[in-house]
Amino acid sequence: MDCTIKNLGSCDIPSPFIDKFPHLDKAFISDTIKMRYRIFLGEKLPPEEEGAAFELAGQRRMIHFKPEETVAAVVTCGGLCPGLNDVIRSIVMECYYQYGVKKILGIRYGYNGLNPAKGWEPVQLTPDLVEDIHRDGGTILSSSRGGTDNMDLLVDTLESWRVNILFTIGGDGTLNGAHQIAGIALKRGLDMVVVGVPKTIDNDISYIQRSFGFQTAFSAAVDAIYSAHVEAKGAPNGIGIVKLMGRHSGFIAANASLAMNDVNFILVPEVPFDLEGPNGLFAHLEKRILSRHHAVICVAEGAGQDLLNSDHEGGERDRSGNLVLKDIGIYLKDKIKDYFRQRDLEVNIKYIDPSYIIRSQPACAEDSIFCALLGQYAVHAGMAGKTDLVIGQWNNIYAHVPIELAVSKRKRINPESQFWHNVLQATGQPANMKNP
Amino acid sequence: MDCTIKNLGSCDIPSPFIDKFPHLDKAFISDTIKMRYRIFLGEKLPPEEEGAAFELAGQRRMIHFKPEETVAAVVTCGGLCPGLNDVIRSIVMECYYQYGVKKILGIRYGYNGLNPAKGWEPVQLTPDLVEDIHRDGGTILSSSRGGTDNMDLLVDTLESWRVNILFTIGGDGTLNGAHQIAGIALKRGLDMVVVGVPKTIDNDISYIQRSFGFQTAFSAAVDAIYSAHVEAKGAPNGIGIVKLMGRHSGFIAANASLAMNDVNFILVPEVPFDLEGPNGLFAHLEKRILSRHHAVICVAEGAGQDLLNSDHEGGERDRSGNLVLKDIGIYLKDKIKDYFRQRDLEVNIKYIDPSYIIRSQPACAEDSIFCALLGQYAVHAGMAGKTDLVIGQWNNIYAHVPIELAVSKRKRINPESQFWHNVLQATGQPANMKNP
Amino acid sequence: MDCTIKNLGSCDIPSPFIDKFPHLDKAFISDTIKMRYRIFLGEKLPPEEEGAAFELAGQRRMIHFKPEETVAAVVTCGGLCPGLNDVIRSIVMECYYQYGVKKILGIRYGYNGLNPAKGWEPVQLTPDLVEDIHRDGGTILSSSRGGTDNMDLLVDTLESWRVNILFTIGGDGTLNGAHQIAGIALKRGLDMVVVGVPKTIDNDISYIQRSFGFQTAFSAAVDAIYSAHVEAKGAPNGIGIVKLMGRHSGFIAANASLAMNDVNFILVPEVPFDLEGPNGLFAHLEKRILSRHHAVICVAEGAGQDLLNSDHEGGERDRSGNLVLKDIGIYLKDKIKDYFRQRDLEVNIKYIDPSYIIRSQPACAEDSIFCALLGQYAVHAGMAGKTDLVIGQWNNIYAHVPIELAVSKRKRINPESQFWHNVLQATGQPANMKNP
Amino acid sequence: MDCTIKNLGSCDIPSPFIDKFPHLDKAFISDTIKMRYRIFLGEKLPPEEEGAAFELAGQRRMIHFKPEETVAAVVTCGGLCPGLNDVIRSIVMECYYQYGVKKILGIRYGYNGLNPAKGWEPVQLTPDLVEDIHRDGGTILSSSRGGTDNMDLLVDTLESWRVNILFTIGGDGTLNGAHQIAGIALKRGLDMVVVGVPKTIDNDISYIQRSFGFQTAFSAAVDAIYSAHVEAKGAPNGIGIVKLMGRHSGFIAANASLAMNDVNFILVPEVPFDLEGPNGLFAHLEKRILSRHHAVICVAEGAGQDLLNSDHEGGERDRSGNLVLKDIGIYLKDKIKDYFRQRDLEVNIKYIDPSYIIRSQPACAEDSIFCALLGQYAVHAGMAGKTDLVIGQWNNIYAHVPIELAVSKRKRINPESQFWHNVLQATGQPANMKNP
Repeated sequence: MDCTIKNLGSCDIPSPFIDKFPHLDKAFISDTIKMRYRIFLGEKLPPEEEGAAFELAGQRRMIHFKPEETVAAVVTCGGLCPGLNDVIRSIVMECYYQYGVKKILGIRYGYNGLNPAKGWEPVQLTPDLVEDIHRDGGTILSSSRGGTDNMDLLVDTLESWRVNILFTIGGDGTLNGAHQIAGIALKRGLDMVVVGVPKTIDNDISYIQRSFGFQTAFSAAVDAIYSAHVEAKGAPNGIGIVKLMGRHSGFIAANASLAMNDVNFILVPEVPFDLEGPNGLFAHLEKRILSRHHAVICVAEGAGQDLLNSDHEGGERDRSGNLVLKDIGIYLKDKIKDYFRQRDLEVNIKYIDPSYIIRSQPACAEDSIFCALLGQYAVHAGMAGKTDLVIGQWNNIYAHVPIELAVSKRKRINPESQFWHNVLQATGQPANMKNP
Repeated sequence: MDCTIKNLGSCDIPSPFIDKFPHLDKAFISDTIKMRYRIFLGEKLPPEEEGAAFELAGQRRMIHFKPEETVAAVVTCGGLCPGLNDVIRSIVMECYYQYGVKKILGIRYGYNGLNPAKGWEPVQLTPDLVEDIHRDGGTILSSSRGGTDNMDLLVDTLESWRVNILFTIGGDGTLNGAHQIAGIALKRGLDMVVVGVPKTIDNDISYIQRSFGFQTAFSAAVDAIYSAHVEAKGAPNGIGIVKLMGRHSGFIAANASLAMNDVNFILVPEVPFDLEGPNGLFAHLEKRILSRHHAVICVAEGAGQDLLNSDHEGGERDRSGNLVLKDIGIYLKDKIKDYFRQRDLEVNIKYIDPSYIIRSQPACAEDSIFCALLGQYAVHAGMAGKTDLVIGQWNNIYAHVPIELAVSKRKRINPESQFWHNVLQATGQPANMKNP
Repeated sequence: MDCTIKNLGSCDIPSPFIDKFPHLDKAFISDTIKMRYRIFLGEKLPPEEEGAAFELAGQRRMIHFKPEETVAAVVTCGGLCPGLNDVIRSIVMECYYQYGVKKILGIRYGYNGLNPAKGWEPVQLTPDLVEDIHRDGGTILSSSRGGTDNMDLLVDTLESWRVNILFTIGGDGTLNGAHQIAGIALKRGLDMVVVGVPKTIDNDISYIQRSFGFQTAFSAAVDAIYSAHVEAKGAPNGIGIVKLMGRHSGFIAANASLAMNDVNFILVPEVPFDLEGPNGLFAHLEKRILSRHHAVICVAEGAGQDLLNSDHEGGERDRSGNLVLKDIGIYLKDKIKDYFRQRDLEVNIKYIDPSYIIRSQPACAEDSIFCALLGQYAVHAGMAGKTDLVIGQWNNIYAHVPIELAVSKRKRINPESQFWHNVLQATGQPANMKNP
Repeated sequence: MDCTIKNLGSCDIPSPFIDKFPHLDKAFISDTIKMRYRIFLGEKLPPEEEGAAFELAGQRRMIHFKPEETVAAVVTCGGLCPGLNDVIRSIVMECYYQYGVKKILGIRYGYNGLNPAKGWEPVQLTPDLVEDIHRDGGTILSSSRGGTDNMDLLVDTLESWRVNILFTIGGDGTLNGAHQIAGIALKRGLDMVVVGVPKTIDNDISYIQRSFGFQTAFSAAVDAIYSAHVEAKGAPNGIGIVKLMGRHSGFIAANASLAMNDVNFILVPEVPFDLEGPNGLFAHLEKRILSRHHAVICVAEGAGQDLLNSDHEGGERDRSGNLVLKDIGIYLKDKIKDYFRQRDLEVNIKYIDPSYIIRSQPACAEDSIFCALLGQYAVHAGMAGKTDLVIGQWNNIYAHVPIELAVSKRKRINPESQFWHNVLQATGQPANMKNP
């Protein structure tokens, strides 16, 4: 488990903070102090985790880039997530006012904005332009998936724009791209670093305790669940189905279910389940309908993919290279309808897919602060010449995590954990809905 | 245009208000004063509207039913609508505390709850039970469509329960049912009246200036439109499509579009449009996408039904007898995708259907008061022995409207009105999207 | 009751709507059709109301001002009210895009912005500038009270700026000022009209069924009452006191109390009450505290002024000439504290004054539409050369009301009305809290 | 720094989880694994922190109390805080459904409910009763300050009720009381433990990374700041002052200021400031008013107490023993008014005190989950016979913290930290407003 952070070497420029903010003198962060990855005493660790420790995020006394000559660039990739504008705003404000970096380019439409063939000109980002953008959802730069087929081409563009610090805000695919860009830049000997701010509304990036926008997202999901609950109770044998985000990890569904307790069945990618059979979902659902006459099902988009007979090897992929999931929500709705029709039991199914409504929310106050900090720490890292890393929060401390480590595995719900038990307890569903 | 309200005749019981609330002495309403239907001077009216005037809603000095012997019943029918619980609560509180009617039955699951074959027992409604229900969306009685095949059977049930006042809260189909029940009761000589509170989230009942829940609904729709706007701007050539309620009248879509100005194209049932051709939606949409790179379309569920080649005569009908509309939202999404694929123009379509989320909201403060008043006026009318009517607001005054009149035609947007012009002005779309 | 609207005479310019919006041909409004003031048949009217009728608001086929030569100006006066920005935005959009009036001045800080001594330059209002302002509370022009000492001076300024249409958005004081300006302009023979949009968060202007922002205001007040309720229940013998706006009319307090039912005592300017004595507030409050251990009081700022021994004739006045009310909220809090201390009964008083929080809200969706319409109707009236009027809603129709009539008396709650009874019923308090 | 947790000894009863929830087998927590207090490598620690480590919270395989014979009791003390009902609900649900403890007493009105002289009977808490309470702000048990004069008396009551586990939810004063109760119980040899859930809306308890309700609170505070901002911009030289909670620590004010960036001056207890003089608040405020014509000040209630000439030693104290602070908000408002009157500069001051509105909010989704977990961990600790502790979150892990340690010092903002610098950066105010 390699926690080493790459950097461009020479850090011989005194931070402008030294003179400008004397009250911050004790707040400079040293590279020699690290945060333990595992923090328990008396715990037996696997060898690779023994002694693992992260570099701390924060301002350095000596930095690599001369602010007035530095060109920064920001790109947002992938699907929308609450807080994107907050991160952009924070990076611009920190670059401009704190370090004095005045040239900040906003790359349009994700990595595609670096592809000359697309013809998208970058935006000049200024404090005036970004002043109020955190009040709005989405991203002023717009975003897109893909654009990562020819990374050398993208680096050519960055080089031609004389970019020194590229801030990439995106998920798995984006970070993989960022890792490649950082590698090419190092190989070419460019004076350019790449700093990532991990974006995953699903909260599924490893070594990152929490991703920005996640809290806003599950809080908004609570409202959709409430609606499903009201609809389910509002008709004879009403069944409300809410499909939430969560391709590989069901954290949004789980947290939303925990927060309000209106969900009776939660289905996540981490926990396989049967539909048919004596211990399948349908049998348990029927029991509930017969006794209580209404039910709410919350399903993460990546749940039950095996049921859809999806060929994970040969399946369709989107432009970011993510597997295109079949829609489990629609599938469930149709199957449940069939099931009860066969049982000759009238049910009223109300299907809610609030994904776009959730994704497009402005960040809640907590996420707003979180994004602001992520942006600042990203600028500190970039100015210090560090590269190929993301800013993560771990043990409640902001740290530098190598991109390669962050994307090495996915964070998922552990079905044997107290957390998942709490979710089960909140829904009242059986721990296991697989037939023997 | 017959505005006459039927009643059971003898009104010889002094209202308990006379002694209990002496400060209300001047607030009793007389049947001899009526409100003009049309209120303009110098306007030429069609003969049938000449002199038309509604009876005023409100408490009568002399009433028909002896409170302590009266049995009331409440039923909610059709789809959910914000404010249902507020109306139920208000009827119960007014019956119980103001008139002293202590026996109030809550009929479960719409008219089906009057069908002995279904076996649903009514709930005893008490102030304690309904005290806080207005804080929740939906209806505590639950609702359903249909159940109106054999009205005599339903009246048998009401008779067996000795119901004197039936309060029906529902839309077109429900009101037609209520009209039949009232007729049967009169024919049988029962001491029973039927008072309706018109429920239409679409605000499409005639002679009713505004229906309860409508305001809550279009206010909630604004949030979905905002999401579509954010999503549309968040991707290259993003197109956000929001489908809103409105089977025959596009008031929700129109008001939501007016309130926030993020919609670029609004499609309602009242205004036909073409998709293809030089003046069709697609051509105008393409122009916008090419110039602005994002667009928001707001479509009422009943818009463009001609395009779907629906046979309005032979089409499928749901249990309330309403024509089952094909889903214009999905249809549009697919067609737009096809169109731009053929043009080889990359677009990103985000489709949002917030209907259940909107329907299940609790009433906003204004609707909450409105529902409370509708409930009270319904009780006043019922206690005075009036029947076969709904409580409506007209010229900003609460009035008694015969059910037959209320369901005689539908309220729709006039495409030649200033109102529709305001909507067009807010969206910026052409007044006409039909090809010559 | 004089409903005549003054105008500049010659209306010989065809409205640009004739050619631009042929679909609106039937939507032109004629001066010859009027709306009845009273709309009941069989009602005995006082002679002055007999036959009274308002001119309808709306676009005229022939207008007075030549759009391309017209200079418009907008001013906002008095305290903040939700929707001010919506009205400003609507006036600018209607002038600019619909009529083609390109020169629109925004007067800063109320009438003071017309006083050369203050040195405030007007802002050039453009569609770009006002595009998104309706999302924010307050007014982009800023506001102030007063500035109405020397109206001739203000007209001098308007004349020097060549203003043809002055839109004034404000309350009583502002409208009085507008009336004077209109009079001076007519006397001087200027080609200038004055059109008011009545602003009163208290909803207390006569002949105006509802004022903009009022609904947003009482809806926000509901939240403060909820807080008081929670606080009252959260401590032994907790008493929550909420002071709401309402200098002379208690509509905000009454509507907020109706909407949520958490208030136990409501005090409004229209209904006098005693504090002490066997039928005073304190005795009733004590009874409630002893039996239920918590209570919520909602008091309008103008309630109980007689108790404060205010000398209404000689009292202090603010810059708009409004009498400075002593703070009944603080007074009540202190007096209640004293009362229970003397009774040796521990109570916990929580005092909430949410006025600024309420006033500064952005308009809710309904008010947003309402404001947009008021703004449009104001522009129609102004372009047609009408002057000395306000746009009002009456019988649910938009009408022209002479300023003099609108300010001639104040709209207040009638304590003998069903409306007030509903409020009493919601609170459960006695109809009368005066000692014999 | 003593992190040892006291306990009643014998833990020989197998947890009912062993059989009931076999999927949780790996989720049992061992006392032998501890979490490091400090988690940095290469950091020089003070000797007392060297090796310090907390016991982990969570379910134990063997427990002390026999569920079916156990009596639990819950008490909420001090001022309201979002989430109180969530914690109560969680404790009841966990006791009842997970462990099988059926007798759970709700103590009314804080510690006063244990004082027989007050005569408050406890409530029997059941799942039915607490099912939906998390949707409401406040506490169903009601709360109060004080009641801690004679702890032996309170223990007598607990003994007479045969309480085995007392859950105390409260702040400093409450925890001191809980520590005394735990000590007396141990001394008397009672089979009774005391487990605290720390409640401080100010987030000022040490060794606790975050307290419940804090996030809900500062999020709500953002709205009040927005109002102050709108009001300040809405009048000539408008000054909005918002007073927020924060007796000794300004975290709410700081976080709210960070989240929205509308604050120009923030005043917290941790950072002394002058009002007068060339570097005092007034001089800086005047500069801002002259250049920008509006300003927002956010002041924590405990800020600037030295200015109020408060005698911290001899000052008045409330029933919980907390020093009664003079109201810095009112003081500032008056002083600023005086200052500008003397400078003959017209300013418009709008003062907002949203404290009760904030305190009474229901918990936001995140806090709701957080409270649910705190409640569960408290029950796990109690059932295992642990006493004199609180459940805290540290390094993002739930831990047992001895009460004595938790109350030993207060958590405060470090004015030399990056966090405070971020706040200053958000406001733009000078780092230092003391005159030399």
